[in-house]
Amino acid sequence: MQVWKEYQEKNKDRFLNELLDLLRIPSISAKSEHQTDMNVCAEAVQQRLQEAGADNVMIYSTEGYPVVYGEKIIDPSKPTVLVYGHYDVQPPDPLELWNSGPFEPIIKDGKIYARGSADDKGQFYMHVKALEILIQTNTLASNIKFLIEGEEEIGSPNLGKFVADHKDLLKADVILISDTSMLSMEHPSIDIGVRGLAYIQAEVTGANRDLHSGVYGGAVANPITILAKMIASCHDENNRITIPGFYDDVTESPEQERKLMAEAPYDEQAYKTDLGVDELWGEYGYTTNERTGIRPTLELNGIWGGYTGEGSKTVLPSKAFAKISARLVPNQSSKKITAMLLEHFQKIAPQGVTVKTFELHGGEPYMTPIDSNAYRAAAQAIKSTFGKKPVPVRGGGSIPICSILEKELGIKIVFMGFGLDSDNLHSPNEKFDLVNFYKGIETIPFFHKYFSL
Amino acid sequence: MQVWKEYQEKNKDRFLNELLDLLRIPSISAKSEHQTDMNVCAEAVQQRLQEAGADNVMIYSTEGYPVVYGEKIIDPSKPTVLVYGHYDVQPPDPLELWNSGPFEPIIKDGKIYARGSADDKGQFYMHVKALEILIQTNTLASNIKFLIEGEEEIGSPNLGKFVADHKDLLKADVILISDTSMLSMEHPSIDIGVRGLAYIQAEVTGANRDLHSGVYGGAVANPITILAKMIASCHDENNRITIPGFYDDVTESPEQERKLMAEAPYDEQAYKTDLGVDELWGEYGYTTNERTGIRPTLELNGIWGGYTGEGSKTVLPSKAFAKISARLVPNQSSKKITAMLLEHFQKIAPQGVTVKTFELHGGEPYMTPIDSNAYRAAAQAIKSTFGKKPVPVRGGGSIPICSILEKELGIKIVFMGFGLDSDNLHSPNEKFDLVNFYKGIETIPFFHKYFSL
Repeated sequence: MQVWKEYQEKNKDRFLNELLDLLRIPSISAKSEHQTDMNVCAEAVQQRLQEAGADNVMIYSTEGYPVVYGEKIIDPSKPTVLVYGHYDVQPPDPLELWNSGPFEPIIKDGKIYARGSADDKGQFYMHVKALEILIQTNTLASNIKFLIEGEEEIGSPNLGKFVADHKDLLKADVILISDTSMLSMEHPSIDIGVRGLAYIQAEVTGANRDLHSGVYGGAVANPITILAKMIASCHDENNRITIPGFYDDVTESPEQERKLMAEAPYDEQAYKTDLGVDELWGEYGYTTNERTGIRPTLELNGIWGGYTGEGSKTVLPSKAFAKISARLVPNQSSKKITAMLLEHFQKIAPQGVTVKTFELHGGEPYMTPIDSNAYRAAAQAIKSTFGKKPVPVRGGGSIPICSILEKELGIKIVFMGFGLDSDNLHSPNEKFDLVNFYKGIETIPFFHKYFSL
Repeated sequence: MQVWKEYQEKNKDRFLNELLDLLRIPSISAKSEHQTDMNVCAEAVQQRLQEAGADNVMIYSTEGYPVVYGEKIIDPSKPTVLVYGHYDVQPPDPLELWNSGPFEPIIKDGKIYARGSADDKGQFYMHVKALEILIQTNTLASNIKFLIEGEEEIGSPNLGKFVADHKDLLKADVILISDTSMLSMEHPSIDIGVRGLAYIQAEVTGANRDLHSGVYGGAVANPITILAKMIASCHDENNRITIPGFYDDVTESPEQERKLMAEAPYDEQAYKTDLGVDELWGEYGYTTNERTGIRPTLELNGIWGGYTGEGSKTVLPSKAFAKISARLVPNQSSKKITAMLLEHFQKIAPQGVTVKTFELHGGEPYMTPIDSNAYRAAAQAIKSTFGKKPVPVRGGGSIPICSILEKELGIKIVFMGFGLDSDNLHSPNEKFDLVNFYKGIETIPFFHKYFSL
C-alpha cells in the first residue's frame, strides 16, 4: 500500500531514533543490578505505545519484572491480533568482544549494533511503528493488542500467571510474534516451531576449601576434573546424548518433512566459513538443519572453577560450576527433562565430591500449523513485500512462553520474524539490519489486512 | 640458649608488628597491576634487613621483579649460610571466601591470617629476626647471606640468570629455606624433597564468535564440551595419568622408603574430616602420603568459558580455557613434561576446534640428602627446641628455583619449614600460627650454631 510506504519514508529517521533510545536502556533481566533499568525500559515502552496511538496502555506489575499492555480496538466484531514481544535482553558478556558498547547503539554498514537490536526490541518495535502507520493512515482493519514482557530471557517465570489472570484482557484470535529469523532476505521463511529449553546449573564440591595443589594434589578429588568427566560422559562417540531416557519422548520427524528440510537453501561450506570452523559437529545421522531444528541438544553454556585470572595459581579448588541447557523438540517436556538433568548430574557424581543442581529456567517446545488463516495471512504479507512466498522452517531457539500462551488463551501463534541467524543473538556485536527493520514495518500492516479479510 | 629466648621475649610484639606491616603489602607477582606493590615490598624487605643488622643490603633489578640481597660476614673462614625466601605471594582469589581482608592481617585464636603469612613472608622473616637476635646477643657463629626474591609464585623466571651472574656474591656452604611445612608441632619433620612443576594453559576455540545456543546448538562443536572431554581423557579409571610417556622417567621409590613413609603419623579419618570429604581420590595402589610425596600428579587449577554470571544466558561460547599443572617427582624433567603437556592438549583436540597452549611456569623436582652436615644441623636445631628429633618427609609442593640454585652454586639445600599443611597456602584464609612463628625464630639460631661447629 502506497500510503504506508509514504508514511514510513517520511518518518523513518524518527522511527530509527526512537528504537535507538530504547536500545540505550540496559534492560538485562538476568542481572538483579539492572532492576531500575528494567523499570525505566517498561516505562519507555509504555510511552512509545501511547505515542503510537494505543489505548489503555498500562504497566502491570508481577512478582518479577512488569508487563506492558496496550491496545487499539476499532470494532469488537473484527479479528483481534495479540502482538507478543519482550523488552528484556541477554547479558552482554563477554564485553571485551564487542566492537562498540552494547548499550551505545551505532549504525555501521547499514546495521544497528546493540544488545537487543534484533532480540527483541528492534523486532517488537516494528509492530509499534506499524500500529502508528495504520492509525495515521486510517487503514486499521483489525484490533491489535500488545503484550510486551520483561522476562523472556530468563524463561518468563511470571508471565504464565499474568496471562491466566488476564484472559479477558488478552482475548484475541491469534498471537503474532516477531522474535525469530528468516533464512535470508532472498529466501524469506516463517518459523513453524521453536525448541523447548531445560536449563540447569551444577556445582561440584570436593574439599571444603581451596587447597595447595602441591600439598594436596593427587590425594583429593579435583572438582574441575570430576565435572569435566561428568560433562564428557553426556555425549557418546556419535555425539548422541547418553542421559538415560533423554530421547524417549522425541517425536521423530516424518521422512516427508526431512525431505522438505533438505530442500531449504543451505551451503555447508559457507556455513563453516562464516563460523570459522573446519568441521561441523553434531548428532550422527542428521544434517545441520535437522540438528538445529528437529533434534534435541545438550549444550554447555558456561563453566568456571579455580583460578581464572592472569598468570598461574597452584590451587586445587574446592568448587567447580557449570551452566547446562538442553533444547527440546515436540513431545519432550521441559519439566521432565529438567528433572532428568537435575537428577542425572547428581547421580553420576563419584564419591569424594558432592553435587548440587538447581533449575535456571525452561520452556516447552512449540509447533504452529501451516494450514491456518493466520499462517496464510503471514505468508501472503511476506510475499507482498519480499516478492517471494516464504518457506516454513523449524527454528532452533526457544520462546518459553509459547506453549503457555496457547494453553491459557486457547489460540495459535504465528511467528513472523525479520531477523537473520547472523544477527549475533545472545553474542557480542548483536545487530539488526536497517533494511530488515524497515521491511518488517512495511510487511506487518499487510498481515493485519489479510488476517482481517 | 637463654639469651636468645630473652631477647625474643622482650621484642616479640615488635617482631610481630613488623611482619604484619610486610603482610599489608599486596605483593602479587602474577598480576601486573601490582607492579608498584612489588617494588614497595622489595624496599620494605631491604629496610628490615638493614634494621636487623645486615650489611651491603641491596635491591637488584632483574628483567622481572627485583631481588633483595643482604649479608652479615663475620669471618670468611667460617661457614656461610645462604637464606633463600620470597616476598611475593599468590593471588588471593576467590576473595569472597576470605573471612577478613587478605592484606589486612588479623590475629585470631593465636594465628596470623593474611596472604603470605606462611608462604613465605612469615617464614623468611623468622630468619631476619634470628639474624637480629644473633647480632644483638653477639652470638653469630656463621656468615649469613640473604637472597629474597619476588617471583617464586610465578616460577622464578629471572632468578636463574641473577644467580648465574652473581655466583661470587652468593657463594656459600649451604642454602637454608623456610618455605615448607611440618607434620605438626608434636611431630616435627624436615622436607627432604619438593616436587617439580609443569604448568600450562590451554585455550579451545570452536566457532569464531559466541553463538545463540538455540540457533546453532547441536551443529557446532561446543568448546566447553570438547575441553571437558580432553580433560576427562587424561586420567583413567585407576586415576593414573594417561598422557603417553608421562610416567616414563619416574624413579620408583624403593620399598624401604615406602615402608618408612607408612610409619609417619597419618590418620586418614582425621584427614578426610579436615577436608570435609567422604572419600579420598588418587592413583590406585598408593597411599595418601605417597600420592602427595613420591608420585607425580595432573591437576586442573582453573577452568572458564561461556557465561559465568548470575542467572542464565543461552550462549554457545566461542572459547573455553583451562589452567593445568603437573607435579613432578625425581628424575622427571619439567621441561620435558611441559613440552609433553603442550603437545598432548593440541594432539587430542578433535576436528571442529582449534587448541592453543602455552607454558605458564615450571620447576624441576629437588631432593636433598639426609647425611649432610647441614641436614644434621637442622635436625639437631629442631630437636633442641621441639624436644623431639624431626622425621624426614617428602613435600608435595614445589620450589622451582631449588635445582637451579644447586646447579649454579654447587651447594645443597636444607628445608627447615615451620608451617603446617593446614595453613591454607594458596587458598583463602591463609594463616601462620604465632607459636610456629616464634618457635621458628627460636630454632634458627641453633641451626647456625650447629652448622658452624
